[in-house]
Amino acid sequence: MASDSLHVTDQAALEELKAFLRIPSISTLPEHADQVRLAANFVRDRLTAAGMQNVELIEAPGRHPLVYADWLHAPGKPTILFYGHYDVQPVDPLDEWLSPPFEPTVRGENIYARGATDDKGQTYIQIKAVERLMQSNQGKLPVNVRFLIEGEEESGGEHIEAFVASGDKRLQADAAIICDTEMFAPELPTLCVGLRGIIYGEIHVETAATDLHSGVYGGAAPNAIQAAAEVIAALKDRDGRIAVAGIYDRVTKPSDKEVAAWARLPFDENEYREKEVKVSALTGEPGLDVFERTWARPTFEVHGIRGGFVGEGAKTVIPARAVIKVSMRLVPDQRPEEIAALLSEAVRKAAPRGARAEFKLLHSAPPSLVDPDSPFLTKAAEVMTEVFGRETVYIRSGGSIPIVGTFNQHLGIPSVMMGFGLPDDNLHAPNEKFYLPNFFRGIDAVACYLTRLGS
Amino acid sequence: MASDSLHVTDQAALEELKAFLRIPSISTLPEHADQVRLAANFVRDRLTAAGMQNVELIEAPGRHPLVYADWLHAPGKPTILFYGHYDVQPVDPLDEWLSPPFEPTVRGENIYARGATDDKGQTYIQIKAVERLMQSNQGKLPVNVRFLIEGEEESGGEHIEAFVASGDKRLQADAAIICDTEMFAPELPTLCVGLRGIIYGEIHVETAATDLHSGVYGGAAPNAIQAAAEVIAALKDRDGRIAVAGIYDRVTKPSDKEVAAWARLPFDENEYREKEVKVSALTGEPGLDVFERTWARPTFEVHGIRGGFVGEGAKTVIPARAVIKVSMRLVPDQRPEEIAALLSEAVRKAAPRGARAEFKLLHSAPPSLVDPDSPFLTKAAEVMTEVFGRETVYIRSGGSIPIVGTFNQHLGIPSVMMGFGLPDDNLHAPNEKFYLPNFFRGIDAVACYLTRLGS
Repeated sequence: MASDSLHVTDQAALEELKAFLRIPSISTLPEHADQVRLAANFVRDRLTAAGMQNVELIEAPGRHPLVYADWLHAPGKPTILFYGHYDVQPVDPLDEWLSPPFEPTVRGENIYARGATDDKGQTYIQIKAVERLMQSNQGKLPVNVRFLIEGEEESGGEHIEAFVASGDKRLQADAAIICDTEMFAPELPTLCVGLRGIIYGEIHVETAATDLHSGVYGGAAPNAIQAAAEVIAALKDRDGRIAVAGIYDRVTKPSDKEVAAWARLPFDENEYREKEVKVSALTGEPGLDVFERTWARPTFEVHGIRGGFVGEGAKTVIPARAVIKVSMRLVPDQRPEEIAALLSEAVRKAAPRGARAEFKLLHSAPPSLVDPDSPFLTKAAEVMTEVFGRETVYIRSGGSIPIVGTFNQHLGIPSVMMGFGLPDDNLHAPNEKFYLPNFFRGIDAVACYLTRLGS
Repeated sequence: MASDSLHVTDQAALEELKAFLRIPSISTLPEHADQVRLAANFVRDRLTAAGMQNVELIEAPGRHPLVYADWLHAPGKPTILFYGHYDVQPVDPLDEWLSPPFEPTVRGENIYARGATDDKGQTYIQIKAVERLMQSNQGKLPVNVRFLIEGEEESGGEHIEAFVASGDKRLQADAAIICDTEMFAPELPTLCVGLRGIIYGEIHVETAATDLHSGVYGGAAPNAIQAAAEVIAALKDRDGRIAVAGIYDRVTKPSDKEVAAWARLPFDENEYREKEVKVSALTGEPGLDVFERTWARPTFEVHGIRGGFVGEGAKTVIPARAVIKVSMRLVPDQRPEEIAALLSEAVRKAAPRGARAEFKLLHSAPPSLVDPDSPFLTKAAEVMTEVFGRETVYIRSGGSIPIVGTFNQHLGIPSVMMGFGLPDDNLHAPNEKFYLPNFFRGIDAVACYLTRLGS
């Protein structure tokens, strides 16, 4: 698809998306707070332009605002709650980006920018779908619609969590629509019915009051980074099994029917390893296939270790402190607070002689599963099949969308995860992209789905 | 000693030392290259002012200059080569300094600044001792004297290594005097007769082409920091023994006489642990005492791990690369190139499935031992005993002063290590200090030593 073949309205949508992507709304970096707010304002303004009502920013002290909007003039019809997020991941390592992360650039059929898929592009699908329906139906929608777009999905989501838990009447709805997942393969319409949960935190390791000279004290003083390495190595064995007592106790195996459906998905493990993951060997628990390992098993990952000397050249210091960024992905029926407690205990026990190690939880989200036989799911599958011209598949995702569990717990509604990302979209990595045909088919699919729900 | 009790000349020496300490000559940081040169100029100018001749900067492309000077008008007397270094360690973590590292501050009887002891303060002892002898003897010295002061001791020392190896006639001498070590205890005159060597380098770990999303790929993709932790944990066991095949093969046990002398040193292991090292437990090889572990056994230390995400907040990335800064301290008769090869092989083998790990040597220095019965040593001991009023002890140091091995190998001369630092001087750490009474006694001792050697 050359961009000069786009319809006039498509070009307008693309230009609007680019404007959205130019805002460096990295919610995890405090110095970007102003830009995060600019992105909230952008969403507010575009919802207003689309014809939504009661558009407002919902504030909380020290938090990035929620953007709320509604249109509730379809009595007797279902009420749909759209969820998305306008914040994005950090961009480091910056030097690996082929074009700057906040200068959206179309190359071939993709648009490259931080947030292109996750989740500005997919959030914008929802806004444009509603706008299109409004424009073609004299300002009316086939169902009642609410929007709740957050700015802290990549940094813990405390604001939306508290707001949804507060029982605010504006969130009454029959189902949520979330466009923040990916298709299993290009051209293969996909509904995601399961998500892993997460606990994210830091392991603090301390050995001494100050850093020490490795010549003078090497051989007698404990080393905090050596201790950190020993703690990490103790928490996961070299085969990929998490070595935390009790961690697998509540893990539920996927049903035979689900496993059989996964086995029918188009998948070549060698191609996945070489072309997508780009590694010399896949890892993880022995005896389980890739889908089970990435969708239905918990993980323990280290994201980085701070401490000691990492600059250019040589500094011969015995580090006194190390901070290890870690997370665990959780699966049904693991409970975040229980897993955090098990990890805390295992961390304490793993500290070698002369070191103290402590796990500090930063945020968490429960895992979730959606009933694939709900009419909200089956109608979504019908529409996706029509738009893409192929049978819709049901998958799970290894990622965490905490709001799905929150909606289920506090609003009692299912979340329909219609995702339009692709597996090679480089989420959370350099050169994030969105496949532009999916941006436009996404708008079609969401608009058709609302029409189907209202018919 | 309150500073108002200093003699006028003492005050002048202190002010000159402060000026030296104000220069942030961090040789390991390329952005400090200009300041490193300022420190070289400072040494050149002070040597000239002290009455030394043929003062010059010896340059090499891309290297920090050596400062050379001589005074060779004592025929029939020994020739002494003074060695010191005008470069200093980096200062991070900066926020742990009570006064800024390059604003020398006298608190009590100590002067606080980066380089106060290591090695600007001790290098300046040598210059002031020579100046004092010149002033009190009508411009004459009791022995022939050369100075060779370098600016790369903290960053590899390639320049001086190459210069000494070049066979330059200006380095003909009978012994070297090095003031870059510490006294065993306050008020206890100490000669250091052994140093550990070092290999310093980086372990590069790579698992994938780019960082990956831990939700999508967690459970299938290898993690470079997990792999780094496993490599580190595999290289040293939890008891502190280095788990590198062959690493202990050439380690020579200290003589019974030396071990017996160590046993007479004033030393309380609990006090050392609590007051000096400030740790909850000492570590290192079981069954060996602290002196043997820190002076006569090799070590493996991790200095820092670069890679992944270590900023504020949460980023759920599976890191594709990690760089581990490591060093090993070496003891007689270990050979740096041999140990580097053993470590390289062990690193390669320790890489878990899906990871490549490679050791890259940055620099190295051999261990060294000096004959305690050499007259240069015994006369130094006599002088130290007189100046401090207590019997001089012989110790080793766990640190590395590569030049000692270089002088021995290429010039065939012993190095007399008269050190005036104290164990709590915070070398390579925040709040480095020098005990000022030792600065002045050091000048006395070096001046007396030259006189004794010339008598």
